Amino acid sequence: MTDYRPTPEDRFSFGLWTVGWPARDAFGDASRLPLDPVDTVHRLAELGAYGVTFHDDDLIPPGSDEAAREKAVARFRTALDETGMVVPMATTNLFTHPVFKDGAFTSNDRGVRRYALRKVMRNIDLAAELGARTYVMWGGREGTESDAAKNIPAALDRFREAVDLMCQYVVDRGYDLRFALEPKPNEPRGDILLPTVGHALAFIAQLDRPEMVGVNPEVGHEEMAGLNIVHGVGQALWAGKLFHIDLNGQNGARFDQDLVFGHGNTRGAFFLVDLLEHGGYDGPRHFDFKPLRTEGPRGVWDAAAANMRTYLILRERVRAFRADPEVQEALAAAQVPELSLPTLAPGETYADLAADAFDPDVAGARECNVERLDQLALEHLLGTR
Amino acid sequence: MTDYRPTPEDRFSFGLWTVGWPARDAFGDASRLPLDPVDTVHRLAELGAYGVTFHDDDLIPPGSDEAAREKAVARFRTALDETGMVVPMATTNLFTHPVFKDGAFTSNDRGVRRYALRKVMRNIDLAAELGARTYVMWGGREGTESDAAKNIPAALDRFREAVDLMCQYVVDRGYDLRFALEPKPNEPRGDILLPTVGHALAFIAQLDRPEMVGVNPEVGHEEMAGLNIVHGVGQALWAGKLFHIDLNGQNGARFDQDLVFGHGNTRGAFFLVDLLEHGGYDGPRHFDFKPLRTEGPRGVWDAAAANMRTYLILRERVRAFRADPEVQEALAAAQVPELSLPTLAPGETYADLAADAFDPDVAGARECNVERLDQLALEHLLGTR
Amino acid sequence: MTDYRPTPEDRFSFGLWTVGWPARDAFGDASRLPLDPVDTVHRLAELGAYGVTFHDDDLIPPGSDEAAREKAVARFRTALDETGMVVPMATTNLFTHPVFKDGAFTSNDRGVRRYALRKVMRNIDLAAELGARTYVMWGGREGTESDAAKNIPAALDRFREAVDLMCQYVVDRGYDLRFALEPKPNEPRGDILLPTVGHALAFIAQLDRPEMVGVNPEVGHEEMAGLNIVHGVGQALWAGKLFHIDLNGQNGARFDQDLVFGHGNTRGAFFLVDLLEHGGYDGPRHFDFKPLRTEGPRGVWDAAAANMRTYLILRERVRAFRADPEVQEALAAAQVPELSLPTLAPGETYADLAADAFDPDVAGARECNVERLDQLALEHLLGTR
Amino acid sequence: MTDYRPTPEDRFSFGLWTVGWPARDAFGDASRLPLDPVDTVHRLAELGAYGVTFHDDDLIPPGSDEAAREKAVARFRTALDETGMVVPMATTNLFTHPVFKDGAFTSNDRGVRRYALRKVMRNIDLAAELGARTYVMWGGREGTESDAAKNIPAALDRFREAVDLMCQYVVDRGYDLRFALEPKPNEPRGDILLPTVGHALAFIAQLDRPEMVGVNPEVGHEEMAGLNIVHGVGQALWAGKLFHIDLNGQNGARFDQDLVFGHGNTRGAFFLVDLLEHGGYDGPRHFDFKPLRTEGPRGVWDAAAANMRTYLILRERVRAFRADPEVQEALAAAQVPELSLPTLAPGETYADLAADAFDPDVAGARECNVERLDQLALEHLLGTR
Repeated sequence: MTDYRPTPEDRFSFGLWTVGWPARDAFGDASRLPLDPVDTVHRLAELGAYGVTFHDDDLIPPGSDEAAREKAVARFRTALDETGMVVPMATTNLFTHPVFKDGAFTSNDRGVRRYALRKVMRNIDLAAELGARTYVMWGGREGTESDAAKNIPAALDRFREAVDLMCQYVVDRGYDLRFALEPKPNEPRGDILLPTVGHALAFIAQLDRPEMVGVNPEVGHEEMAGLNIVHGVGQALWAGKLFHIDLNGQNGARFDQDLVFGHGNTRGAFFLVDLLEHGGYDGPRHFDFKPLRTEGPRGVWDAAAANMRTYLILRERVRAFRADPEVQEALAAAQVPELSLPTLAPGETYADLAADAFDPDVAGARECNVERLDQLALEHLLGTR
Repeated sequence: MTDYRPTPEDRFSFGLWTVGWPARDAFGDASRLPLDPVDTVHRLAELGAYGVTFHDDDLIPPGSDEAAREKAVARFRTALDETGMVVPMATTNLFTHPVFKDGAFTSNDRGVRRYALRKVMRNIDLAAELGARTYVMWGGREGTESDAAKNIPAALDRFREAVDLMCQYVVDRGYDLRFALEPKPNEPRGDILLPTVGHALAFIAQLDRPEMVGVNPEVGHEEMAGLNIVHGVGQALWAGKLFHIDLNGQNGARFDQDLVFGHGNTRGAFFLVDLLEHGGYDGPRHFDFKPLRTEGPRGVWDAAAANMRTYLILRERVRAFRADPEVQEALAAAQVPELSLPTLAPGETYADLAADAFDPDVAGARECNVERLDQLALEHLLGTR
Repeated sequence: MTDYRPTPEDRFSFGLWTVGWPARDAFGDASRLPLDPVDTVHRLAELGAYGVTFHDDDLIPPGSDEAAREKAVARFRTALDETGMVVPMATTNLFTHPVFKDGAFTSNDRGVRRYALRKVMRNIDLAAELGARTYVMWGGREGTESDAAKNIPAALDRFREAVDLMCQYVVDRGYDLRFALEPKPNEPRGDILLPTVGHALAFIAQLDRPEMVGVNPEVGHEEMAGLNIVHGVGQALWAGKLFHIDLNGQNGARFDQDLVFGHGNTRGAFFLVDLLEHGGYDGPRHFDFKPLRTEGPRGVWDAAAANMRTYLILRERVRAFRADPEVQEALAAAQVPELSLPTLAPGETYADLAADAFDPDVAGARECNVERLDQLALEHLLGTR
Repeated sequence: MTDYRPTPEDRFSFGLWTVGWPARDAFGDASRLPLDPVDTVHRLAELGAYGVTFHDDDLIPPGSDEAAREKAVARFRTALDETGMVVPMATTNLFTHPVFKDGAFTSNDRGVRRYALRKVMRNIDLAAELGARTYVMWGGREGTESDAAKNIPAALDRFREAVDLMCQYVVDRGYDLRFALEPKPNEPRGDILLPTVGHALAFIAQLDRPEMVGVNPEVGHEEMAGLNIVHGVGQALWAGKLFHIDLNGQNGARFDQDLVFGHGNTRGAFFLVDLLEHGGYDGPRHFDFKPLRTEGPRGVWDAAAANMRTYLILRERVRAFRADPEVQEALAAAQVPELSLPTLAPGETYADLAADAFDPDVAGARECNVERLDQLALEHLLGTR
């Protein structure tokens, strides 16, 4: 039996804030102690992860002076060196402090917007220094509870101004870094700007340097809007914009659960792994989850390991699914490969369509054979094939 | 007292399929008789609408021979002439016939895709002939129930191929016509491609002629995904892509209700009218609703009138809201105008930000004054001011 | 390898309307031909089902005269005799005909309410004659789109009057029949009365003969409200009211999908089978699903078979889960068995609680060990253990 | 013009935790300072409220010794005396401290369950001492994230044991106090027990003293499950169980927003006030909301006042709605009063139904006239009539 043991080749990464979440929620006090980032690096390495990611404030406690900052970074770097762990991605905390209560890049208060830019720039420097290639922007506070209180087109102007400026900064500094926008529909704001992968992709098209900016879809965030994560990630891949991904679990439209990957919509997780493995994504498999508040230190690491193990099980399953001759036959019976054929033949124009002999009633009676294929997928997920 | 009587200057339009819906639903047989499109045109004109829109199959019963088709069009045109009604928009029915059960532009069956293109082209000719300036594409069957049965990037390739081809067709024919994509997250398919305004805008950026294609957001479709319609329409306006709009009512994440405008999320309707009236949209106010299945002919026209009347009431209210000095003062107290100021002053660069004196704790303690403003908006909606 | 072949001992049943759904939906015409109920009985028997269920109108086309009715029943009965299939449940169609557009038992129109009662009584006679032990009531049209148009307490009075009357009827006739109410939150009505298992259970407590009435939860209906089906069915079992169950699949808050069991929330299906198999339910495993509209006759029967096969796979998995010593150890570590101990010891009163020595900070730091247990459950679902 | 100024006769009450919320959320630190309960009492009294409610921990900081406790209570009582404010309701905080992370009455840990009972009893004493007549139980931590980790029937046994015991306690002490269960579907737990009004009512029917226990529906909690609050409250009233109510605002299925009453689903708020004012409820109008995190002290009190003012506006509107002769005529045209007529006449039995002459096709073609009525309601809400 396969042992599903992760290795650095699997490119699994975790945020410091995931295992390090002290389990304070909207209705309850922290149930766990903070973790030392250095310990986290060592522990993740032991479990088989290859990378660790961070918000500025995860690594450097807000309010640290320069010496404390340097010390925190030095200790972290040492831990990376000792373990061989890398930092594939970093990001900025623009949501915890009350200063961001009305937004960061889109706060009505211009001073706040300027402060947010400074905070990002400073952490971009650190990200680049630590070798990160992706810089995530989650605009969790860019939003509204009352549509009277924010002019949406003006907010998008300011959002664009900020991202354009940060791109310029990275170019000027010569960093080898791309940005990835992370969409979310709501929470903590009533409605958040760029609520889905689609909105973020559309926004990118309006930037000065769209080639530098992609998306970081999070499974649960799309599912909070009742959207199919495979469709969203598929559109991002199609647009060449899947720069990073946040894997976790969610049970539909409700608060952001950040469950272990696969512990929510298990069938969706199967199809997502299939897409990631066979759709041309080669970036990190990053887990952005929260160990349940019921857990203590043991449960935290059980949960961290469960994310990777589940991914490996699903990866095995989707490979078997694609390799199964009966599946291939069923895909053909469902005409799935035919969708990759252009609708017009080479050299054809729309005028040539008129020549088709076609009876819609006959075509409408054709079997699509989806149920059989779907059950084959389910049984590969369940491991009975 | 204002009488809220609509006139053609208000640019209200209705689809033939709205008042003409025979009230057959997923669990019940038709409860009303079909309407004659000619009668519908006359009745809508009497009620104060300026325009009528249609799917090909609304006007020309499927299976009509050429003579029947010409007769139907001639009668319709006569009704338009008699009433002065216009056809601002037309669209194609690519969802009722079983031939489209797996999609139209993205059916796995290439023959179906080609048939769909022919069906669209034929109706584009009619749309242009009748003076339509917008051609809507709702891909209601472009989707999946099983992610095994459709390759999403391939489906988007085919979708793009189809839209590019139809743009080419319009250009070649010299029609003064633009396309508007209408997003919807699900129903009748389990998950539909281009599920939100965001996804549609992102798709447009990948087209050969993006300038010819915009969006047609429908209030209820965005709200089915729990999204804020004002934010979605705001992003479309910001991108210069609000080519058309479908107004109706919905109560959150559930089946597509197509209620009378304002009969679902009333507060959202207020803010949407505010955006449409003050955000630079000058197209039709198109109602895409279904009179309740409980209604007979009287209820159908009561409902049609209610859409327009509600819009006019809300328009009056948002004008009063914007004109109210106390509101203006509250907007200033919430720093709403400040968001229109660029974050960097003219000539500033990011390097200049370092010079700011800024205490995040002080800024975080600032009152944003949103509650007062939000209550002023509510009271304008309720008409107590 | 287990072959997961269903047998009558598994007690699988299907509604005539499930495989027989002609695939007409809210936006599309029928894509399949109707099935002959006699053929359905034979086909289901061949696939391994033990039972078939029906609405009156599924078996006897509306408008049939007495002779046609008798012939339809006789043919059906012969099919049952030939196959050994049973009729464990029957129900009434109180939703398709426009007469029920405002409700059946709760229509504002008293004549409609009386007609609905007659329709139910007539089919109860047939149900009893065919040996059914459960009579389901789905009040799909008992609801509202406008809260102005129905007085909710009055509607519940009428609903109670109807159910009390039907209980009286069954008692008077001496039928060995119980009723099961089927909740649904919305669709086809905007909001349906008795929207969840909880509301139905609460309603039952107000009846004249509560002992004769239980619930028939449908997986997808509870999940349309974002509710956990295991919790709902668990509360029904706890109240002694799980008289029947409708198994199918759904992807969260949206239109009623009626997918194959397990093809929506797979992880939820695992825990539901665990509850049904180990929680004391011994009734039919009834599938209330719709084969996808994309399918023809082959896909219909593929889908029917898939329901049963998935159930059998999950049954195997939950048995292995419960038998796994590591799971038992993990359950103990999560203190799951301790919840079955009364909070007060025998003879204790609340006054005795004062004697406890208890430090909430110590107890709050205890590991609950849920993540490990949850991952063990997932891996049993995935078949890696 | 009416000034919508609240008076104690309006019976408006607020929780200490509402205006006192320091605005710490799942992603952000507190943005406001705590309020002194004494100041809150004075301020609420000035604004026109008649009552104040509390969790034990709102009034007496956890960890207070006996002297601190007595002092806190004495100061609070003085404030009540000075202002004439009453305490109509009190409740227990069984959710903030980590000890309750797996539940209180249904924690797997028996020691926690016992501790929870002690905590409740102690605060019941205080509630009775301060004159409260309703004691609310919100089981926010009674739930699961993994269905493997809690036996639902056992959990409901323990929940019942706890409520039965607390009823016994109240009876033994001779307090004039009733319990009200507050349902919520999820958050902070993944799925909470007794998730809706329906489930709570059903649970009450299983208690030793059902007459002592009712429900405390919260607008937003029902709307988080996509349920119609008017239907839920209507069923509670019908069952004689509306002991208390929590008014606030929510925008559908997402995190718990606790907006100002009317700032979410405004149209639903209109119909809810109509039901409360005309459906026989005579308890407090209690606001359980959170001032937005963007606000400082000024916004907090703006928001508090907005709740009451909105209620008064809506009360005026529903009175006008009921008094409007055109509405009365429209209600009759929609046959709304006819639903209050029993379906069987006095003395009739089901056998008499056979005598009806009734043509379903004729009845099915009847106009229900809902659209007109719904628009009249909307226009009363909007104040144009």
